[in-house]
Amino acid sequence: MQALVYTAPKAMEMQDLPTPTAQDGEALIEVKSVGICGSDMHGYLGHDDRRPAPLVLGHEAAGVVTSGPKTGTRVTVNPLVTCGTCPACSSGRTNLCPTRQIISMPPREGAFAQWLTMPEGNLIALPDHLSFDQAALAEPLAVCWHAIRLCAAQPYVDLTAPTVVIGGGAIGFGSALALKAFGATDVTLIETNPLRAAHLRGLIDIPVCEPSDISMGQAALVVDCVGYKATREAACAMAAPGATICHIGLGDSNGGLDVRRITLQEITVFGTYAYTEKDFQDTVAAMADGRLGALDWAEARPLSEGPQAFADILGGRVMTPKVILHP
Amino acid sequence: MQALVYTAPKAMEMQDLPTPTAQDGEALIEVKSVGICGSDMHGYLGHDDRRPAPLVLGHEAAGVVTSGPKTGTRVTVNPLVTCGTCPACSSGRTNLCPTRQIISMPPREGAFAQWLTMPEGNLIALPDHLSFDQAALAEPLAVCWHAIRLCAAQPYVDLTAPTVVIGGGAIGFGSALALKAFGATDVTLIETNPLRAAHLRGLIDIPVCEPSDISMGQAALVVDCVGYKATREAACAMAAPGATICHIGLGDSNGGLDVRRITLQEITVFGTYAYTEKDFQDTVAAMADGRLGALDWAEARPLSEGPQAFADILGGRVMTPKVILHP
Repeated sequence: MQALVYTAPKAMEMQDLPTPTAQDGEALIEVKSVGICGSDMHGYLGHDDRRPAPLVLGHEAAGVVTSGPKTGTRVTVNPLVTCGTCPACSSGRTNLCPTRQIISMPPREGAFAQWLTMPEGNLIALPDHLSFDQAALAEPLAVCWHAIRLCAAQPYVDLTAPTVVIGGGAIGFGSALALKAFGATDVTLIETNPLRAAHLRGLIDIPVCEPSDISMGQAALVVDCVGYKATREAACAMAAPGATICHIGLGDSNGGLDVRRITLQEITVFGTYAYTEKDFQDTVAAMADGRLGALDWAEARPLSEGPQAFADILGGRVMTPKVILHP
Repeated sequence: MQALVYTAPKAMEMQDLPTPTAQDGEALIEVKSVGICGSDMHGYLGHDDRRPAPLVLGHEAAGVVTSGPKTGTRVTVNPLVTCGTCPACSSGRTNLCPTRQIISMPPREGAFAQWLTMPEGNLIALPDHLSFDQAALAEPLAVCWHAIRLCAAQPYVDLTAPTVVIGGGAIGFGSALALKAFGATDVTLIETNPLRAAHLRGLIDIPVCEPSDISMGQAALVVDCVGYKATREAACAMAAPGATICHIGLGDSNGGLDVRRITLQEITVFGTYAYTEKDFQDTVAAMADGRLGALDWAEARPLSEGPQAFADILGGRVMTPKVILHP
């Protein structure tokens, strides 16, 4: 099969790899649409030691089952494989399973390929009216849904109070959509790239601003979808006394949290990773019934043009929040 | 009146100051017992620019009202003065009032003195069976009560799961007491000074350990009552996936939070400051009915020996979690 292989930092190429074989409990899926994630970019840049070259990246997949009892079913793929029996899994926090695996990290190859095998429990059937390109958005939207569900569960979060989302990529944009789905009424999205900001204004009916447009110390909830030292510093400064900061992005690992302000102003900072099984299912249900909007904000390219797509994203030449590849 | 005045870093002396006069809505209190807090130590060391010399420190006071309608009432003092009308006060989060003041920070002098004036709403009447020395513990215990109440309100906190409290000073010891009062069943207290650890073992029926006795990645809740970079690093390492870290202490302001672990393992870090009015009242009620134990863990000295008491605490020569001064 044809696959897009990450071979070295900033180097990707199409290669002919063996088609995988479904093991017991797994299904073979013909991949139709697969999104490029920020974590794929980290891997591509050589910044993620969990993703060593050579490796097939990609974990935002939708396609058709071609083996086993679900043959012919159109599905989107929950790429997080968990044990199902540990205390975390038993309590429903499947994303914290200590043996969790995700496709695109060894030992599991990714979905930038014509074929993929997955445990059957990781496949969510699609309603007919969701396209494969739309269905490939389920994974990043599940990240957002999970994060915003956790925000809403925080004891002092009020979704009618001022909320700021930092970052206009898929996770930032999707978090703004999820906030609206959860009933938030005062959401501002921050995007520093003015061309992308202008593009986003055409996609969503909330203010899209520069960081300098935001008043300091006013936001009751800040969702940092970038996760660099500078965005954490900004999140702490924007947060009102008693506010909550949700940290989704993981741009870098150190610094930026203002411990003095967090303590004296009782600010809560929580990290969020991926989604539970139920979050993923709830996200697909919300996509199907329109709560997450028109799902029309991705651009699609052939998988064979993947190397150029990565280079274009890195070069800031992509305005849409998501690029999807077609194997 | 006689007062203990902080005059320069590591310098305190008794001085004769004018006795304060109660303004409208205030009462004059004859101070009977007043505790030394870690924040008084920060001030004494010159590490807190909110507390410039010369200044009367001290904010953990109990005494007798000697003016106004409550004359003769034995009281403990809520030292946090808030406006009562802002959104934070109206919502019950009085500790986040943007114009909050605390005695021992300008413009309010502290309680290391024979007399103190306070708004009458800041005075909580004592039951006869609480001594002034016990009542002076209300303020630090209210800090702990508030913090543990916020812990219990966190969506994933289970007080029957392993909980670690870092620091065996009054706030760490009091947090362990508050955890027990809230129903926690698996609490371990960490104290690095072996002499103090041995003393604490005689005061509370929970394990008192060295940091090296704690297994990493196992605690569902960590309460950092020290708040230095090293203790935040320890808290992040001890925290299990999905855990909560409560940050009460404010030893220093930067570093120690492991953002990568916080994100990938969905750890929540929240800061806590002081207490609400209701927390303070609830704490005094819990002290009165025995839920916070015997309240016998302070040692008392004359106010005139305050300079030596500060020097002894700084030199690590005090084993009890609290020193109380008698004006």
